[in-house]
Amino acid sequence: MQPFNQTIAALSTPPGKGGVALIRLSGEDAIAIAERVFRAKSGTPVSHLPARYAAYGDIFLDGAPIDDVLLTVFRAPASYTGEDTVEIASHGGMLITEAILTALYTEGATPAAKGEFTRRAYAAGKLSLSEAEAIGELLDAKSMAQVKLFQRDSRTKLSQTLQELYEDVSALLSSLCARLDYPDEDLGELSTEDIAARIETAKEKCRRLLSTYKTGHAIAEGIPTVLLGKPNTGKSSLYNLLCGKDAAIVTSLAGTTRDVLETTVPLGRVLLRLADTAGVRETDNPVEQIGVARAKETAKEAALVFALFDASQPADEEDAELLAFLDTLTGEKIALLNKSDLAQAFDANLLVGHVSECLPFSVKDGDLAALTALVDRTFTDGDIRLGEDAVLFSARSHAALLLGYERLSAALDALCVGFAMDAALTELEGALAAFAETDGISVGEDVVSGIFSKFCVGK
Amino acid sequence: MQPFNQTIAALSTPPGKGGVALIRLSGEDAIAIAERVFRAKSGTPVSHLPARYAAYGDIFLDGAPIDDVLLTVFRAPASYTGEDTVEIASHGGMLITEAILTALYTEGATPAAKGEFTRRAYAAGKLSLSEAEAIGELLDAKSMAQVKLFQRDSRTKLSQTLQELYEDVSALLSSLCARLDYPDEDLGELSTEDIAARIETAKEKCRRLLSTYKTGHAIAEGIPTVLLGKPNTGKSSLYNLLCGKDAAIVTSLAGTTRDVLETTVPLGRVLLRLADTAGVRETDNPVEQIGVARAKETAKEAALVFALFDASQPADEEDAELLAFLDTLTGEKIALLNKSDLAQAFDANLLVGHVSECLPFSVKDGDLAALTALVDRTFTDGDIRLGEDAVLFSARSHAALLLGYERLSAALDALCVGFAMDAALTELEGALAAFAETDGISVGEDVVSGIFSKFCVGK
Repeated sequence: MQPFNQTIAALSTPPGKGGVALIRLSGEDAIAIAERVFRAKSGTPVSHLPARYAAYGDIFLDGAPIDDVLLTVFRAPASYTGEDTVEIASHGGMLITEAILTALYTEGATPAAKGEFTRRAYAAGKLSLSEAEAIGELLDAKSMAQVKLFQRDSRTKLSQTLQELYEDVSALLSSLCARLDYPDEDLGELSTEDIAARIETAKEKCRRLLSTYKTGHAIAEGIPTVLLGKPNTGKSSLYNLLCGKDAAIVTSLAGTTRDVLETTVPLGRVLLRLADTAGVRETDNPVEQIGVARAKETAKEAALVFALFDASQPADEEDAELLAFLDTLTGEKIALLNKSDLAQAFDANLLVGHVSECLPFSVKDGDLAALTALVDRTFTDGDIRLGEDAVLFSARSHAALLLGYERLSAALDALCVGFAMDAALTELEGALAAFAETDGISVGEDVVSGIFSKFCVGK
Repeated sequence: MQPFNQTIAALSTPPGKGGVALIRLSGEDAIAIAERVFRAKSGTPVSHLPARYAAYGDIFLDGAPIDDVLLTVFRAPASYTGEDTVEIASHGGMLITEAILTALYTEGATPAAKGEFTRRAYAAGKLSLSEAEAIGELLDAKSMAQVKLFQRDSRTKLSQTLQELYEDVSALLSSLCARLDYPDEDLGELSTEDIAARIETAKEKCRRLLSTYKTGHAIAEGIPTVLLGKPNTGKSSLYNLLCGKDAAIVTSLAGTTRDVLETTVPLGRVLLRLADTAGVRETDNPVEQIGVARAKETAKEAALVFALFDASQPADEEDAELLAFLDTLTGEKIALLNKSDLAQAFDANLLVGHVSECLPFSVKDGDLAALTALVDRTFTDGDIRLGEDAVLFSARSHAALLLGYERLSAALDALCVGFAMDAALTELEGALAAFAETDGISVGEDVVSGIFSKFCVGK
């Protein structure tokens, strides 16, 4: 990360061959640097270009023109970063963009660190920390539900709600402190009941936002999911069916940092993080035994278990073993009575008490509608209007908000049992610090660095 | 390829995750379509936005906002394609860009074919065929010399020179035809000598341009090169040294359509297309024999051969065999007396007559300066000012130009031996057609399609 008086430059579009590439330059010298490397066809110097106007001209390196580009100036504070920013749309070759960056570095720009443009936007107050987090997630979006969740209206709403929480508690604290510090001033009456009511209101607002996290998490992070079932119940076919729904997106994940043994597939609004396990069964093969042991570990951590049974056959010893294993798991267990298109011979009553839901199913028909609806109902709150309501999605914000909620509860307890006001004040201050952290109003440098380091260079 | 009354849309930046992605929309409905999917924060409809002004706002799909973007309108003919064009700079996620394209397609745009934006620019007379070819090559540029060769000034100069050739011959033909068709008009005197002089001038202009092809080809297409030498002469080390000069660019070629057994590395201004051969030597192993046979085939087609000898050892039987093999090759042969840092025991006189150049060398020192200068001198014309002079680089243009040159020579011959003017006219018409083809003034559909199909979608 550079000191903010440095002017940074980077390729903002993905590397590789394309028709166009976009290079961004931001900082107090951005316009001066651009003026030294660019000559507009019209002859207008960069410093005289109207803001937001795409000017055609050439970029020079070592005195020679290297590419004809469109250059647009955004003047502070009306830019993404809030600083003077110049965007250069060049031809999309690898070497061309390297050469243009070389020209910018030669004239004084420094290479931007990961996420540094967005970090500067945050530092300039152009966006809050939760908004920055949403933008980071948006670039990785794997489902349209994610796109809606991280889209501008949605992220603004979340940020506003977090801000309101902070301001409510902050205002209450100010009132209380003023009355304690200046007991002789006429600051109006503020009874214990009034204080308790205001804390209660903030607590309720906090609770409502916390309640959206299950949905936000299922959409944003995905649900760790395993497929269990004895051989020939259609486990592999279901796996392929789930993955095949959007093979392109599955492919596009090959290079991500997630565990390669995990496939992320959208199912309706939520994401499934499907573990690619060896399957759970008795075996004498020592290598397979290790695989089975790992599969069992994975199943224990899964939040969702699809247990497949062959509905066309009576239950057997292996099915019974699976049911016993299911009883040791804590995730949501959905039994899928596969081959529901054939004559039914499996007694579904055997499942009662072992699974949370039971669904007749046919992998062969490939109809995922009922399963999709069931998973959506189980993991999301249908009352939430995606793209309109504030939805909490990050584990970081959730943890901070939960802490804030607990401190509000403790403040309320302190008030009710008649402790000195000091005890309540300490809890309220704790709540305020937690709420501040959710949206980066005053968070530690390590938290901020952690968020921006997940960005790519050029954002 | 769409009929030109269709409005096309595509992602113009490389696919993948990035800070920003750029989507292009071009055609007569571009502004109307953009207006239906975009709502500016200022409230200004797209049709009322000033040209070339980046407006901030949201893209809508199915009535819901999906991303906040910068949208810029370019009004015909002041755009890349010459048509109304809209550029949308969105967040750089895979799904985001797909969703925005879906919104555009829903409102009537069609997906662009490969190179279709540039093809429309060509159709609108915004650029010539040789300029389009240069832009296509620019995106793939692997050396700074290529960047200079394909850069705007350079490609404009080539296009102008081709255009002048066409116009010179065209003007001469018009004069001759007018005199033949209207013998009674007073069109001034045009003696056989005058005609011959004008043909001679065109021929000389054509010859000069043709003479730049060797340089242009070495820089643009590269020189097919092989490394020969008995084991332990440093062949592999030289290979690594040549490749290692710019490992990033070598890596970036992994996905190109070139033969994967060939590595393209810049050496100074030129490119070497290094064949990764098994090496040439006597062997009893039948599998290796096939490898050696293939290596010999490759060597026969190479335009440049680096023959390595161990200068610290006296020549032996294997060296003699290599010299005999070199005599069967037609490419430029450069002997490298490797290990020149050790005491010298190899008699360089043995090489006389077998190779074109001989250079003391040390792979260990890793200094490629002398070799680079020698190759540059051998394959390029030092008088050519790269980035300023017109340089022919495409095999297609070279073939057409060569044909034109031959037809001009034939016209001159016909004149000189006193054939009827008709014979000279036929040859001049042939020359004109050939020159027209070089810059796409009137070329067949198949030629045009061939050029644009090499582009990526979005260019």
